Amino acid sequence: MKLTEEIRNFKAEAISEAGAAELREAARDARVWAVAATSAAKSGHPAGALSSMDIYITLLGAANVSPELADSPERDRIVVSHGHTSAGFYAALAEYGFFPAHEMAANFRRAGSPYQGHVERCVPGVDWGTGNLGQGLAAGVGFALAARARGSNYHTWVVMGDGEQVKGQLAEARRIAMKEKLTNLTAIVDWNDIQISGRLEEVMPADIPALWAADGWRVIKCRGHDCCEIYKALKEAKNSAVPAVVLCKTTMGKGVSFMEDVADYHGKPAAGEKLEQALKELGSDVSLFDALLEERKGAMPKGRSVTHEKPVLCTGRPHTYTKEDKKDNRWAFGRTLAEVGELNYKKPGSTPILVFDCDLAGSVRVDGFAKACPENFIEAGIQEHATATAAGAASAAGVVSVWADFGVFGSDEVYNQQRLNDINRAGVKTVLTHTGLDVGEDGMTHQCIDYVGLFANTYGWNVVVPADPNQTDRATRWMLAQPGNICLAMGRSPLPVILDEKGEPFYGGDYEFRDGKIDLLRGGKDAVVLAMGHLAGRAVEAAEALAEEGISVKVLHCATPLTMDKERLFAEVGDMPLVSCEDHNAQTGIGNIAAAAFARAGKALKIKSMGVTRYGLSGRNTDVLADMGLCAEGIAAAVREILK
Amino acid sequence: MKLTEEIRNFKAEAISEAGAAELREAARDARVWAVAATSAAKSGHPAGALSSMDIYITLLGAANVSPELADSPERDRIVVSHGHTSAGFYAALAEYGFFPAHEMAANFRRAGSPYQGHVERCVPGVDWGTGNLGQGLAAGVGFALAARARGSNYHTWVVMGDGEQVKGQLAEARRIAMKEKLTNLTAIVDWNDIQISGRLEEVMPADIPALWAADGWRVIKCRGHDCCEIYKALKEAKNSAVPAVVLCKTTMGKGVSFMEDVADYHGKPAAGEKLEQALKELGSDVSLFDALLEERKGAMPKGRSVTHEKPVLCTGRPHTYTKEDKKDNRWAFGRTLAEVGELNYKKPGSTPILVFDCDLAGSVRVDGFAKACPENFIEAGIQEHATATAAGAASAAGVVSVWADFGVFGSDEVYNQQRLNDINRAGVKTVLTHTGLDVGEDGMTHQCIDYVGLFANTYGWNVVVPADPNQTDRATRWMLAQPGNICLAMGRSPLPVILDEKGEPFYGGDYEFRDGKIDLLRGGKDAVVLAMGHLAGRAVEAAEALAEEGISVKVLHCATPLTMDKERLFAEVGDMPLVSCEDHNAQTGIGNIAAAAFARAGKALKIKSMGVTRYGLSGRNTDVLADMGLCAEGIAAAVREILK
Repeated sequence: MKLTEEIRNFKAEAISEAGAAELREAARDARVWAVAATSAAKSGHPAGALSSMDIYITLLGAANVSPELADSPERDRIVVSHGHTSAGFYAALAEYGFFPAHEMAANFRRAGSPYQGHVERCVPGVDWGTGNLGQGLAAGVGFALAARARGSNYHTWVVMGDGEQVKGQLAEARRIAMKEKLTNLTAIVDWNDIQISGRLEEVMPADIPALWAADGWRVIKCRGHDCCEIYKALKEAKNSAVPAVVLCKTTMGKGVSFMEDVADYHGKPAAGEKLEQALKELGSDVSLFDALLEERKGAMPKGRSVTHEKPVLCTGRPHTYTKEDKKDNRWAFGRTLAEVGELNYKKPGSTPILVFDCDLAGSVRVDGFAKACPENFIEAGIQEHATATAAGAASAAGVVSVWADFGVFGSDEVYNQQRLNDINRAGVKTVLTHTGLDVGEDGMTHQCIDYVGLFANTYGWNVVVPADPNQTDRATRWMLAQPGNICLAMGRSPLPVILDEKGEPFYGGDYEFRDGKIDLLRGGKDAVVLAMGHLAGRAVEAAEALAEEGISVKVLHCATPLTMDKERLFAEVGDMPLVSCEDHNAQTGIGNIAAAAFARAGKALKIKSMGVTRYGLSGRNTDVLADMGLCAEGIAAAVREILK
Repeated sequence: MKLTEEIRNFKAEAISEAGAAELREAARDARVWAVAATSAAKSGHPAGALSSMDIYITLLGAANVSPELADSPERDRIVVSHGHTSAGFYAALAEYGFFPAHEMAANFRRAGSPYQGHVERCVPGVDWGTGNLGQGLAAGVGFALAARARGSNYHTWVVMGDGEQVKGQLAEARRIAMKEKLTNLTAIVDWNDIQISGRLEEVMPADIPALWAADGWRVIKCRGHDCCEIYKALKEAKNSAVPAVVLCKTTMGKGVSFMEDVADYHGKPAAGEKLEQALKELGSDVSLFDALLEERKGAMPKGRSVTHEKPVLCTGRPHTYTKEDKKDNRWAFGRTLAEVGELNYKKPGSTPILVFDCDLAGSVRVDGFAKACPENFIEAGIQEHATATAAGAASAAGVVSVWADFGVFGSDEVYNQQRLNDINRAGVKTVLTHTGLDVGEDGMTHQCIDYVGLFANTYGWNVVVPADPNQTDRATRWMLAQPGNICLAMGRSPLPVILDEKGEPFYGGDYEFRDGKIDLLRGGKDAVVLAMGHLAGRAVEAAEALAEEGISVKVLHCATPLTMDKERLFAEVGDMPLVSCEDHNAQTGIGNIAAAAFARAGKALKIKSMGVTRYGLSGRNTDVLADMGLCAEGIAAAVREILK
């Protein structure tokens, strides 16, 4: 389009008459493809797509985006939070040449096609896959924070529906943006006043302008089908001295008479005569649709491949803690994080490290980093949902994004946000402290005994559970420089350094952290104990006690339960009885992974899975653990029992 | 206390001078026990306990609560949302005779004691266990809705901290309360302006009065250490024509000079000289503390036992769908729910059924219930977090609480809320529709392929995955009349009725749903297929196709993977090869449960776990399922392969 020369990067004061005509024509054409796409798929959300269309066409014309920039780190970011308007956003992208409109329309929601039901990153021009409502603004916050940390001038735009305005996570994101003064972020609401079940007032009343204003945002209103007004409002918002939201008054189903202002076509495409009428009203005809149906039988188009890049970081030299040191793992993590942070802070060529906290900096030991790298520390308050998504999106925009929190907040509370980070192939490093019964006095609600069981449901997350401060130091350095989503899980209490049979630190010196590796802590020939995390030290203690009784126990530790080297496990265990132990639900942690692996390999042996079998007590961590049998004596008893 | 006669149930217009003196003395005494308790435990949150103390003392004096009423369905409900102020709330309860103060203080946070670190229901007077912030108001909404549904006049009080005011779930709850005109609910905020990391303004700025006002709540302010003012404000709030919040301006650590207005004692008890000073300032001395340490070595006190009661319901007669019917499971669920709803609606003696929806009534098929029982249908908008907690709390207050939503919203998005429902021994019936790849075109973000893997991490949840509309009908009736938390999971698409070998509906007629049962759909002697949910029909189809090739396959279905009868499984499978199949993550569903069970029983056999092994495509459900091998032909191929 010629138009882009006029308004691209908001150059023009206002849109010219010729420009407006061009945008209107583009919007009309895109409406044809959006309607046709949903009808070809017999599935999708035509009315919402039509509602947001003029916003999409204007924004894509004026923002710093283009097919050539689709993978550029300096492009503006656009998050479509109401991902079900995919047909509309795809059609608008096609108008700007991101891909052919007919290809999109013919293959929309076709199994194997990149043009999926909700916007996904495999489509060029889509920066964040959405579909679960209310989460887009938090992703936008992440992109905006990444821009600032990288010293990049790109702007982030978040387009939302109105029904999702009541979702709590959205308000959390609004507050983080305000606190961080993210004037490089603009929110846009398609306010058509209809959601699936009817008018907003009937479904869940909310004073949308008041909600934004209560959090300090500047509220700008405009007519959402008038490109000139939209442009003016977006430009004003972009230049605002405080974060601004543009509320666009729109009509659901705009452009197709029988879809206008009715909830019925929210999730129902037009068919038959209705489709003919819709295409006619939009200035097209059904021959276009017939051609699409033909193309839909043809070759499958390919999408963009999305990967998470390995950061460029200097990770420094590990410390070796000796047996005299009695530090908790989180202390070691915090020290290492602060060191690596300082080594790379504002260093040209280094990927910036952003650290997020939810009002627990001292407990989760990110206070050292905050001191060393103050501009890269984000205090997000008690707002875990928005933080999880923001940290995820930031990691997809060229920073190393670390979020540390108590286990139940960083995994249980935000499981779905972490699942969506997985789907988006983000690379957030989630650091869980206070996991397990080791949380002690805080009791049931704070017992994070399911993080392995949760992340096991995803396809990309890795979980790292170090055994002692030495392994924590090395695992932290390893994690920070890895691509992809990784969870580092630690307990609360000080731990003895694990020693090898010569009395030297097992994970000290030249020990290098390796994903999937099983560590042989002690040799033995009567039984095997497979431990995870802080149970490793207790397992060694049990083995030493059993040795005095003449029972020879091999002790294995694996810090990465989800990627554990199964062949090595089979080789180490042989046909000895196996006791697994972990400060984690016994049904869903490393014991379960090991048991299922043996079963699937067709191997029978005696197995006992020790772990948490009910919610634990509230008291001293050693008492709470011992009550569950998770102590050296408990492990020794289990070994004696399995050898009977 | 005499005082209760004066202000109990807010009888008095205002507190008399004598009454005020009595309350102040009670608050002083309770402060002693709260401080002593945290110091005895060397753990806990003294400063927050002191901050909320005058609120607790006044509220417990004026609300309709007492030790005698602690288990009465008609008592007022008090939710302490900032559960870490437990020592304060417990001490206040002790002042009113709920239990001896010294017993609480001596056994606070002692492993095995009911006086846990965060408030838990095993302590008489605690109506909802909390600890994860921002969730108490939603619980209060649930209690208030239950009161209305039961025609009960009790009032619900929710006391919150100020740091948690920014949590999104809280705003969601605020809106549900407003929409439902819950004037039987009062919110109270302990506004001391300090959270763990410092002043609210520094950690996460929020205009607290503006946030409440934006959602339409009446905002009442008072001085939060003045019992007379608190009483007046609470009375005004209770009588308000719209839901009201009382913002109490308080001082963190009130009553102990060195704790006042500093963040340091948020989570740190006083010790040594500081403790002596604190006790002295509060008008006590260290001899009290020494006695507590002695008592702490003694016998462990017992807590209240909390169970979820079996509802009283007429569940009607099941329908039998024939092979000509091709209905989806959610349709059968919706029909049954509406029927059972109508049978019991406003019937004396029947437990009321409350149904919650998050803007998906038509899709999740609760629209029939909404029509039949309009007053018991709660449209909560796109606010899943608050809904999950509200539905949970309502179920703990004498109603059958049903919440239906798409799978990803009812499980993934609210996993932690469901975990807390488990900890609270609630009895919410969560109905998931659109689970699995069967969701079709909606794509990755909507693929709920982890619900078994999620709920497997809890200790109380049961999961029911019916195979066809007949089993759905019977499972729904069974579930509604059961105590405890139960998840009913269904796909999206119409399913053929499963027939027995004579061609009659397998789950029709007199078939009775039984928890844990394994159903023998087809006999066979070469291999076993264990199916879950809609894969059952496809497994039967595969068995019939294989029979023609001379391969005899036994087909088993188990609708309750978490309680599956393992002995029966071992007996049915024997040493035949086993193929499991499910529209669920292959690593965390029924196949994993079966594999781990065989391993733990020391049995070796050939096992193949079919299921979802990566995020699925976006397209026609049959295409998406077939792409993952989850079709009759895929199952048959797996059986052939395992028999090689």
